[in-house]
Amino acid sequence: MMKAIKDSVHDYITLDPVAGDLLDTRTLQRLRHIKQLSTVRLVYPSASHTRFEHSLGVYHLASRALEYLGVDGDRARHLTAAALLHDTGHGPYGHQTEEVIRRRTGVDHDELGDFLGDTDAGAVLRDHGLSVDRVAAIVRGEGELGQLVSGELDVDRMDYLVRDAHHTGVPYGTIDHERLVRELQYQDGTLVLAEGNVQTAESLLLARALMDATVYRHHVSRVAGAMLERASERLLESDAGIDVERFRRMADHDLLVALREHVPDLGERIEYRNLYKRAIWADLAATPADVVDLDHEGERDAEREIAALAGVDDREVIVEVPGRPTFTEAGSRVVVDGVPQRLEDASELVSGLRAAQRAGWRMGVYAPAEHTDAVAAAAEDVLGVRAGSIRD
Amino acid sequence: MMKAIKDSVHDYITLDPVAGDLLDTRTLQRLRHIKQLSTVRLVYPSASHTRFEHSLGVYHLASRALEYLGVDGDRARHLTAAALLHDTGHGPYGHQTEEVIRRRTGVDHDELGDFLGDTDAGAVLRDHGLSVDRVAAIVRGEGELGQLVSGELDVDRMDYLVRDAHHTGVPYGTIDHERLVRELQYQDGTLVLAEGNVQTAESLLLARALMDATVYRHHVSRVAGAMLERASERLLESDAGIDVERFRRMADHDLLVALREHVPDLGERIEYRNLYKRAIWADLAATPADVVDLDHEGERDAEREIAALAGVDDREVIVEVPGRPTFTEAGSRVVVDGVPQRLEDASELVSGLRAAQRAGWRMGVYAPAEHTDAVAAAAEDVLGVRAGSIRD
Amino acid sequence: MMKAIKDSVHDYITLDPVAGDLLDTRTLQRLRHIKQLSTVRLVYPSASHTRFEHSLGVYHLASRALEYLGVDGDRARHLTAAALLHDTGHGPYGHQTEEVIRRRTGVDHDELGDFLGDTDAGAVLRDHGLSVDRVAAIVRGEGELGQLVSGELDVDRMDYLVRDAHHTGVPYGTIDHERLVRELQYQDGTLVLAEGNVQTAESLLLARALMDATVYRHHVSRVAGAMLERASERLLESDAGIDVERFRRMADHDLLVALREHVPDLGERIEYRNLYKRAIWADLAATPADVVDLDHEGERDAEREIAALAGVDDREVIVEVPGRPTFTEAGSRVVVDGVPQRLEDASELVSGLRAAQRAGWRMGVYAPAEHTDAVAAAAEDVLGVRAGSIRD
Amino acid sequence: MMKAIKDSVHDYITLDPVAGDLLDTRTLQRLRHIKQLSTVRLVYPSASHTRFEHSLGVYHLASRALEYLGVDGDRARHLTAAALLHDTGHGPYGHQTEEVIRRRTGVDHDELGDFLGDTDAGAVLRDHGLSVDRVAAIVRGEGELGQLVSGELDVDRMDYLVRDAHHTGVPYGTIDHERLVRELQYQDGTLVLAEGNVQTAESLLLARALMDATVYRHHVSRVAGAMLERASERLLESDAGIDVERFRRMADHDLLVALREHVPDLGERIEYRNLYKRAIWADLAATPADVVDLDHEGERDAEREIAALAGVDDREVIVEVPGRPTFTEAGSRVVVDGVPQRLEDASELVSGLRAAQRAGWRMGVYAPAEHTDAVAAAAEDVLGVRAGSIRD
Repeated sequence: MMKAIKDSVHDYITLDPVAGDLLDTRTLQRLRHIKQLSTVRLVYPSASHTRFEHSLGVYHLASRALEYLGVDGDRARHLTAAALLHDTGHGPYGHQTEEVIRRRTGVDHDELGDFLGDTDAGAVLRDHGLSVDRVAAIVRGEGELGQLVSGELDVDRMDYLVRDAHHTGVPYGTIDHERLVRELQYQDGTLVLAEGNVQTAESLLLARALMDATVYRHHVSRVAGAMLERASERLLESDAGIDVERFRRMADHDLLVALREHVPDLGERIEYRNLYKRAIWADLAATPADVVDLDHEGERDAEREIAALAGVDDREVIVEVPGRPTFTEAGSRVVVDGVPQRLEDASELVSGLRAAQRAGWRMGVYAPAEHTDAVAAAAEDVLGVRAGSIRD
Repeated sequence: MMKAIKDSVHDYITLDPVAGDLLDTRTLQRLRHIKQLSTVRLVYPSASHTRFEHSLGVYHLASRALEYLGVDGDRARHLTAAALLHDTGHGPYGHQTEEVIRRRTGVDHDELGDFLGDTDAGAVLRDHGLSVDRVAAIVRGEGELGQLVSGELDVDRMDYLVRDAHHTGVPYGTIDHERLVRELQYQDGTLVLAEGNVQTAESLLLARALMDATVYRHHVSRVAGAMLERASERLLESDAGIDVERFRRMADHDLLVALREHVPDLGERIEYRNLYKRAIWADLAATPADVVDLDHEGERDAEREIAALAGVDDREVIVEVPGRPTFTEAGSRVVVDGVPQRLEDASELVSGLRAAQRAGWRMGVYAPAEHTDAVAAAAEDVLGVRAGSIRD
Repeated sequence: MMKAIKDSVHDYITLDPVAGDLLDTRTLQRLRHIKQLSTVRLVYPSASHTRFEHSLGVYHLASRALEYLGVDGDRARHLTAAALLHDTGHGPYGHQTEEVIRRRTGVDHDELGDFLGDTDAGAVLRDHGLSVDRVAAIVRGEGELGQLVSGELDVDRMDYLVRDAHHTGVPYGTIDHERLVRELQYQDGTLVLAEGNVQTAESLLLARALMDATVYRHHVSRVAGAMLERASERLLESDAGIDVERFRRMADHDLLVALREHVPDLGERIEYRNLYKRAIWADLAATPADVVDLDHEGERDAEREIAALAGVDDREVIVEVPGRPTFTEAGSRVVVDGVPQRLEDASELVSGLRAAQRAGWRMGVYAPAEHTDAVAAAAEDVLGVRAGSIRD
Repeated sequence: MMKAIKDSVHDYITLDPVAGDLLDTRTLQRLRHIKQLSTVRLVYPSASHTRFEHSLGVYHLASRALEYLGVDGDRARHLTAAALLHDTGHGPYGHQTEEVIRRRTGVDHDELGDFLGDTDAGAVLRDHGLSVDRVAAIVRGEGELGQLVSGELDVDRMDYLVRDAHHTGVPYGTIDHERLVRELQYQDGTLVLAEGNVQTAESLLLARALMDATVYRHHVSRVAGAMLERASERLLESDAGIDVERFRRMADHDLLVALREHVPDLGERIEYRNLYKRAIWADLAATPADVVDLDHEGERDAEREIAALAGVDDREVIVEVPGRPTFTEAGSRVVVDGVPQRLEDASELVSGLRAAQRAGWRMGVYAPAEHTDAVAAAAEDVLGVRAGSIRD
């Protein structure tokens, strides 16, 4: 008899034998200790959900999509295993430490290939006659099936939007995920939404855009995330004896304890939500192009320069410049008059969303509350950015 | 002690003494028998909710808004009474018969002034020392308070979006209504959303746009609505002895029974959902400008011409041309950098939505299933419209 | 491709070909016009949902149950058709007119056999090679499959509890229906809940008991229901020319219009919720045994006697004595230590519930507000019932 | 302007100035890192919510209750502060370590008096002119107001039932909390539910009973909890240098890391959900009275004896005997016919619930999967308990 797990979003999730065995591995159990929204829960206290339950949700939606797509057998088993495992490559605090890890290893969280084979999860896959490489390739988004787990219309996105809405209480992410899953089709190997679903596709984009603005890129979460990233860098540079390989295998609780011990100033601030404040919060128009394009080293240099000018310790200044806004979901495909079209060609809304995304872009300079004035003045000088007023 | 009523959307709604007395009037009780979404429930079977519960919801949100706005006393009592009564001017099947009534009386559903005073509700208002005229003016959207009941940021819209989402099961209308209500402010007599709420305002528009496309303007509901309108015209022109004054006081069940008796062909089709089908379903690009601008008489003339050419009874052809798309919500106001701005100036999304709304416009020609081919051919000739394929 | 319908409780409901065709019949479309909770919506205004959507829900749960039970083919098709049709025998206002019809025809709402064959739904069944008699037998609860539609553990009950909770806003009916459906088994032809589900079975009973007290037997709904029953009796006895066969084919709107025309005193009171009030509201202890056992004729005689004594028109007194409390769900079966047991043997809660049900029993005497004192005094005399105070 | 926090259960929670300041203290922020349901989330993966969000919920319900009760000013401010702080005395993993701490300190989690004054939260209270002692007394349940935070009808219970239902996905806890809060009254200093609320009170008990059986006392959570308790004992007895004062100030992540380092066998099993299994799972009838009454030392002695007989390490046997079932909620009071009665006198259900609670009592003996047979046999010998079969 197949195991079923109660989920607060999808109700009962029935596990096939591979999934049942994968669930008992340390590789997957570790995700119980990595929160889905990392620092967002400092803004939305109910958002303590984990990548473990999200992984179950993605597995569930993948299973349903395969049913509607009529895919079964070996291909289906690889796909659902990949859905369950797709987030196991994440380091502690998920996306918040992804850059730290990438800078040292060159590897993204969805590149499981180089390590999955050595884990207990890899052993389970082999025991069930599945190919570790094929599962890893699907997680990277490769092939027909890969699009279902990592693409413009993937079930990963569908699960996190509706789950994050449930747990934050912010309704914007409440998409019609069942309709999305039912309307998926393959056309010439490309995953598309069937005829009559331009609005369905738009609704996915709109949900993402509203959740971005209200939840994922909330400034308090961004400040805490930037502090966590700096603290992680300092942990790896400290004499704690923690290298990047050990670091990326940590879970949230490990990192929180390690930071408090080895990077106590930031560690305690993160643990007790005693955060830096925004000294600068500038939109694209107020930010010189060379600042928009600053890389990690450039940010560090700017921090030191600003700190020197403001007369504060350079660990008390954080410069955070997000990449230029992109909008990959605009490439999702939907059938219109019998022909698959890119959503940006089929929908008048996409260009508006793109512009709104640009309008919502902000770079920030953060510092302890008592230094924000000094740091703001210095940052205006150093970066040539116009400070503006900070209201939201 | 104040009465409280359990609502499936807002939980308990506490009634003040005026509201408690208004609730017992025939004027308000009649709304129990007028469905909020009229023919939409032929598509979404769970959507049987009524204007009675919606009126309670609008009353509730109005009360909360006043609390946050700090308005109380006499002004507040007029406002909440108006919120409760705002839909009592509707005829049977709400908006679906509005045009029929307007053509004969020149009066819209929100013009209560001429009759509210003569009703039992008017008597209740006077008993409580309230001015019937002032309440009627608020329902028409006049004055500072009128904006709260009928304006770009009114609580009417907030209630119906979230209520229609709850009852249809379509999640798109699930807005953050509590935030909207909390963030309302008056600036120089104009209702605005406070600083930091561009996304809040956008979310209201997006919810409306998605619900429009998926629910309110679903083609099956439009076909049934057009049949209902024609049937109502014929009822009023028949020898049933029903004049427009009696007609506009009917409730849904009265109309359904009257149509089955006096306009049996359409009446039975509506009652048992045996609807006409689309012969033509054309977007703006496929529709000549003079057809887009057809008025009611023009539609009737076209129907007769098409019917003659197709060789069918002219009661078996319906031409329905919606007005050119408008987008009044674009004028809602939100404070940006301390200054109230029209949303269309503050948000990059509005122009995209406007374009999407234009792209979603459709005119239709409807006929019994067995005649759609003949009617389509005739309609192409008569109207010069390109038929295209009907897919959604 | 199979049709899917959006439901506010179960989300998308996929229809098999038989269900798709049945849905288009007048027999089923009529249920759009019969409210699930009849007079309950006078208490809970959001509860306007219909037997049409409930029938879809029962169909859906039946389909899922069959999947888990591994039943398919011909048996499954008869079962799901029966699930969809199970309420088509209801008269207007459902259970509220059931007694009126039974007294004249001897037939219950679930005895479809004698008329289903003559309907358009019967024709659809035959077209699809299904047996009308077999479907009718399942609706009556006969055979193994009959238990799924009409028995102690039927999906009818599961759907209405969760649906009524959704629409009233009263949370008590929110059962774990998916678990119930998953844990059903057949043991020697009897439907049981699998091992480990005593609490699951208890939760179903508790939900029913709490909904009974709070929703289904709310005194306002009972008063309105009793008025509706009396009004229906008088309609059938009037010169309106409506016999019981036509009566039982009516829908809610037909009855409401007919009552207003032919029984205007009660008809208008029901339409505008201007209800009689309780003169007497007595529990078992306060009610003499011969009153508890009054039959319909006995109630009518008592009404006349009370009216005479109180000096009011005998149409202004209603005596309503519910049957002695029964508790059929106590017989649902659940496997304990490998053996199916009746729930009342397996659960300590059942006897408590039974006692609570007895404690909640009330008989009522109702009259217009201005006569309740006189009627109460007369009823105490005539019936020997102790009036007590009316508080809830 | 008052801060508002978005909660997934109660929507926006508005904070008064005291609450706003308390929220920024370490004392309260620490609760972000203590999960509400500790080991339950090993069964229900979505249940990762924290005592921080629960504390906000209790604060919210307390504020609403005070509004309906008409309590304001100084008394109200002490009460809402107590509501917010009521769980700050919890050690890591909440109730799971409560016994460990009590055995060493004699202090329960709700006895804040001895330490609250020394915390940053105590300082905030004094800054706002509130008495630390008075707040501590309310948390202990003393006085009129204390009943609202810790009593049979407290808002603590109301929040956790509905919140745990939301986060586990188990619907049984979904009570009508708004009605409960609205119907509270003080009669002669005792908190009661107003007339007409016997069912309301019953529903609270039933929700608690069903959640107990399905969620709170799920056997997997009990096994994990017992392992956590043993591991905590061993941590305190180890040379890790952690005394009980430091222990009780830990949060979940601190304990998890400390256990993995200092009690690695159990620590890793808990972290990766590699749990002991049930060797014995016996109800009251199968358990000798002297075993039912075993205290902590008795359990430890039995473990050693069983381990010796089974030939396993005595750290691989856990004996867990819960206290005899009690049922304090039976004492909640509700007004019946004008007089407050204990619910057990007013409701026929209570004795059934009490019996069901006794029937659901289980003692367990747990061991690694490979030793359960040997341990079961030894435990039968040592304890004289009948093993029975383990099915649920």
